[in-house]
Amino acid sequence: MSKASVTVLGLGRMGAAIAEVFLRNGHPTTVWNRTPDKAIHLDELGAQRADSVADAVAAGELIVTVLADTAAAGEQLAPLGAALNGRTVLNVATGRPDTARELADRLAEHGARFIDGGVFGVPQTVGTPETLLVYSGAAEAEAEFAEVIRELGATKYVGADAGLAALHDMAVLAGMYGLFGGFFQATAMVHTEQVSAVEFTDAFLAPWLRSLLDMLPTLAAEIDSREFPVNFSDLAVNATGLADIRATSRNQGVPTDLLDPLQRLFDAEVERGHATASFTRAFAELIDALAPAGS
Amino acid sequence: MSKASVTVLGLGRMGAAIAEVFLRNGHPTTVWNRTPDKAIHLDELGAQRADSVADAVAAGELIVTVLADTAAAGEQLAPLGAALNGRTVLNVATGRPDTARELADRLAEHGARFIDGGVFGVPQTVGTPETLLVYSGAAEAEAEFAEVIRELGATKYVGADAGLAALHDMAVLAGMYGLFGGFFQATAMVHTEQVSAVEFTDAFLAPWLRSLLDMLPTLAAEIDSREFPVNFSDLAVNATGLADIRATSRNQGVPTDLLDPLQRLFDAEVERGHATASFTRAFAELIDALAPAGS
Repeated sequence: MSKASVTVLGLGRMGAAIAEVFLRNGHPTTVWNRTPDKAIHLDELGAQRADSVADAVAAGELIVTVLADTAAAGEQLAPLGAALNGRTVLNVATGRPDTARELADRLAEHGARFIDGGVFGVPQTVGTPETLLVYSGAAEAEAEFAEVIRELGATKYVGADAGLAALHDMAVLAGMYGLFGGFFQATAMVHTEQVSAVEFTDAFLAPWLRSLLDMLPTLAAEIDSREFPVNFSDLAVNATGLADIRATSRNQGVPTDLLDPLQRLFDAEVERGHATASFTRAFAELIDALAPAGS
Repeated sequence: MSKASVTVLGLGRMGAAIAEVFLRNGHPTTVWNRTPDKAIHLDELGAQRADSVADAVAAGELIVTVLADTAAAGEQLAPLGAALNGRTVLNVATGRPDTARELADRLAEHGARFIDGGVFGVPQTVGTPETLLVYSGAAEAEAEFAEVIRELGATKYVGADAGLAALHDMAVLAGMYGLFGGFFQATAMVHTEQVSAVEFTDAFLAPWLRSLLDMLPTLAAEIDSREFPVNFSDLAVNATGLADIRATSRNQGVPTDLLDPLQRLFDAEVERGHATASFTRAFAELIDALAPAGS
């Protein structure tokens, strides 16, 4: 059986890595980049270089867009109009769910199917199980191209809504920024006593955070149960503990802005009478906006 | 050589675990707990049960306090006055640096030496390298009891200032709460589309956070250099990315309070002209309080 023809739009490091995987796996592969002399090594692997987006799209059954973001993919594709008919577009640039849904609608108007994906991994690990690709969108297109997409790494299809993959992506990155915020706070606190960030991170912070990651599934189960049973520690202990940490930070001259909002969530839940529930009940404060009192 | 006599004040799960390690290692071990019938299994291992704190303190060269917090250790010990003379106290309850420093001063007035410690680990792993004990305080006492303390796990002595161990402890916990805040934000965001916290955490969040921990030493080196070179991504990219994540969260009805302060740090550093520096430059915003403009 002949391999599906693919087109890769955008030859930054990630786009070039994706094109290389497809070429090594024997797919007829067409590439396009705004500045044409990008990722020259792909030519030796047999890449066809298209002069225009229109030519590139005409050459592939599956069009993989790896441009600056989802909006940039829309800007390149939308002008092609009827030439998009029958194509499947897989976007793996970062973007927001609403942008992905809009692009899905625009492409559908021209008879094209849209799958939005988010890549958790670096270009070096594309094509190995170390890269995780979360994707969502047109169910028939997913059925048709699931095998091809799986060549890029471990994959997880999360549903027909084109916005779902981006939501997963954005949520994971929200978790990442939480970790980074804590990292900045922690290193600033020890910095006040001339402790190096590297020594502190290697000896204390990273090992402890690593052990906490083993707790996360249990904490997630507390959240899913909506009962917030205590497997580790309760709200009262955490509200007091966080207040001590913030007092320590202030005493050392480090502002506590990064930690103050979590204190407010803990305190609000304690005030609502949940002091003996697990501290994961802070989650309930975030979804209250979805479930106003009395609903 | 006979083993040093030790006393453990407080027989909660952690205190009992510590006493058990000392007993198994052959130390003459005296225990005391406010309610006397706690951790009865220690008696079979040869523990001497003291009727009062005074008796307990009289029996041990090294007094390990594992009470509710550092302040509680002070409340039990300070009234003993001259009976403390020549003793070394190792406190392993959580507390603030200022509380530890105050207790060190009070004990010194009575001729006792104070070491404050923080335990990263659970009672089950005390006595194994999986538990990390950070401690600081009286240098001569540390030299005398370092071997005994090392029986409790991996140890790291961080200096003669009795407040330093607590600062390390509080800083690590600040990092922990950053991670937890991100976890709550992330699970709330996917909850809006009926995605279970467990599935999301197992498949996406935990693996990604785990891979980020491998980056932390490099990010810490960026901070230590004070040059903030870009090894991963710059401030501009992160300021824009975080804004997209917050917009996505708001669109889904989840408040962004937990992420807003980090956005302010990123934006402030971009405004100061550091858009092309590493995003770790957010750290500089936290220590600005220590180094006002022009200093």
